[in-house]
Amino acid sequence: MKVMTISGFGGPEVFSEHDMPEPQAGEGQVVIDVKASSVNPIDIKIRSGMVPPATPPFPAVLHGDVAGIVSEVGQGVSHLQVGDEVWGCAGGFNGLPSGALAERMLTDAQLITKKPKNLSFVEAAALPLVSLTAWFALSDRAQIQTGDLVLVHAGGGGVGHVGIQIAKHLGATVHTTVSNEQKAHAARELGANETILYRGLSVDDYVKKYTDGRGYDVVFDTVGGDNLDASFQAARYGGTIVNIAARSTHDLTPMHSRGLTLHVVFLVGQVANPLNRHSIKPRLEKLSELAENGDLQPLIDQQQFEIEDVADAHAYLESGEPIGKVVLTR
Amino acid sequence: MKVMTISGFGGPEVFSEHDMPEPQAGEGQVVIDVKASSVNPIDIKIRSGMVPPATPPFPAVLHGDVAGIVSEVGQGVSHLQVGDEVWGCAGGFNGLPSGALAERMLTDAQLITKKPKNLSFVEAAALPLVSLTAWFALSDRAQIQTGDLVLVHAGGGGVGHVGIQIAKHLGATVHTTVSNEQKAHAARELGANETILYRGLSVDDYVKKYTDGRGYDVVFDTVGGDNLDASFQAARYGGTIVNIAARSTHDLTPMHSRGLTLHVVFLVGQVANPLNRHSIKPRLEKLSELAENGDLQPLIDQQQFEIEDVADAHAYLESGEPIGKVVLTR
Repeated sequence: MKVMTISGFGGPEVFSEHDMPEPQAGEGQVVIDVKASSVNPIDIKIRSGMVPPATPPFPAVLHGDVAGIVSEVGQGVSHLQVGDEVWGCAGGFNGLPSGALAERMLTDAQLITKKPKNLSFVEAAALPLVSLTAWFALSDRAQIQTGDLVLVHAGGGGVGHVGIQIAKHLGATVHTTVSNEQKAHAARELGANETILYRGLSVDDYVKKYTDGRGYDVVFDTVGGDNLDASFQAARYGGTIVNIAARSTHDLTPMHSRGLTLHVVFLVGQVANPLNRHSIKPRLEKLSELAENGDLQPLIDQQQFEIEDVADAHAYLESGEPIGKVVLTR
Repeated sequence: MKVMTISGFGGPEVFSEHDMPEPQAGEGQVVIDVKASSVNPIDIKIRSGMVPPATPPFPAVLHGDVAGIVSEVGQGVSHLQVGDEVWGCAGGFNGLPSGALAERMLTDAQLITKKPKNLSFVEAAALPLVSLTAWFALSDRAQIQTGDLVLVHAGGGGVGHVGIQIAKHLGATVHTTVSNEQKAHAARELGANETILYRGLSVDDYVKKYTDGRGYDVVFDTVGGDNLDASFQAARYGGTIVNIAARSTHDLTPMHSRGLTLHVVFLVGQVANPLNRHSIKPRLEKLSELAENGDLQPLIDQQQFEIEDVADAHAYLESGEPIGKVVLTR
């Protein structure tokens, strides 16, 4: 079968097409006939060599997000059958047998469930990593309560647009930062109560304007870097920040002065480590329920790609232009 | 009345004795005839000019911890009467009327409760700041559960020795780092299940030796600085760190790789801000109950000081020599 692999770190040009033997499902595994995948920032970081411990051995087949049809079921797997339409974030990381940039993907059945009935393969492939990340962040870790005032950074981005919907589902009032009016419109359509065009505004400006200077109960930092410092500043005294990309250095004095809590969520750690994988299936089932109830829908960029054009898809996501997820199909 | 004040930042020598008018209790306030106070690192940081926002206006009367006898009760105070023997962490910070380095201390009655019956004034004055800090850290924020494996750093220190006892009270198995065998002995007497003489040991060494390499559920970092980095390293995947002194800069990559939570607790923010003061009384009452049940006792250094010798007491705490709290009496 055809796969897209990398054999070294670098720019989008490191992807090349190879033939690999058809995978076979061992105990607890399934093979999925891949219909669609999507690009996440972690895929770009792995390709670039920024997260060596998470990189599968070369030649590496990347990408976690998958939607497709089960083509083989290994022993001991009871929740899936051949022919099931499924989704998951299930590969492309060290410790997992394969990735989604392939005709067929072999994976641990614990990471796969039936996809929401009302979503196409393209729509389903856009959601697993971002919605699992946002669910762990906002429900498990920040434990958002009804009435919380939540700031979601980058509401037009992959995790951000799902974060808005999950925070709303949990009963929060949601404000979100966006870089332009087009993203603001998309964020409002997904339920954001306020959109903050942050360019040219200081954190103090928008905290004053939108919270009367009190600050946010929960800040969801989907960006990292300097944005984490901005998040410390935007939280109320005793507030909570959830970050998904904290691989940087920060002065924690504002955390001390305000008595803050910082949760850092790294979905790869839940997916790649066999000891943590049991946490995935119940949450994916919950997210499927949200999607089927209309509480969770993907925002998909208008430009779509074939799996063999993954290099172009990576370059496009790196440009910062996409609104929502960049999806690949075959 | 006599008070010890500072009129500028600096070393212990900045303290000097002054006369001030007797305070009078306004609405919601009490005056306490001071019997004892104790030195906390925050008092040293305030004296040194390291926390300007927390510093009361000059000439400033420092020190929060107090034990004494109520000598006057203002209007609207129903839980205290003249003659009550009381304790609290109730002054010496910007926003509060006075500090404990005085014959009489004026304060917000919300910060004062009756002291544990079985403790002397000296014993009671050693506990408020450290035990409130440890209670917020371990009960409110880390939410320690029965069976948790908890590492308390600096178990021979002020917050550390109380942290051991509170973690035990909450049902944890408690390990603690100490710098010498004398402190190890004291920590074991207070209930520590293991004492780790950390000098010459790497974090990986002791995590391997005492947790089979798994890491701690909760790490209580009472030290800050480099010790916070060591705390990230000592926590298990998905574990929790509680820190009480994070005014420094840190690479958060280990938090991301391990999916950690960091709570930062700053008791001054609870005490000094009128909006947060209501949180203190119920916790002080709970801590009194612990003390009266024998679950909480102070470790008091053998060297004690008069309030007018506060400069010597500060210098002594800064030497790192004391085991437990340094108390001042009059």
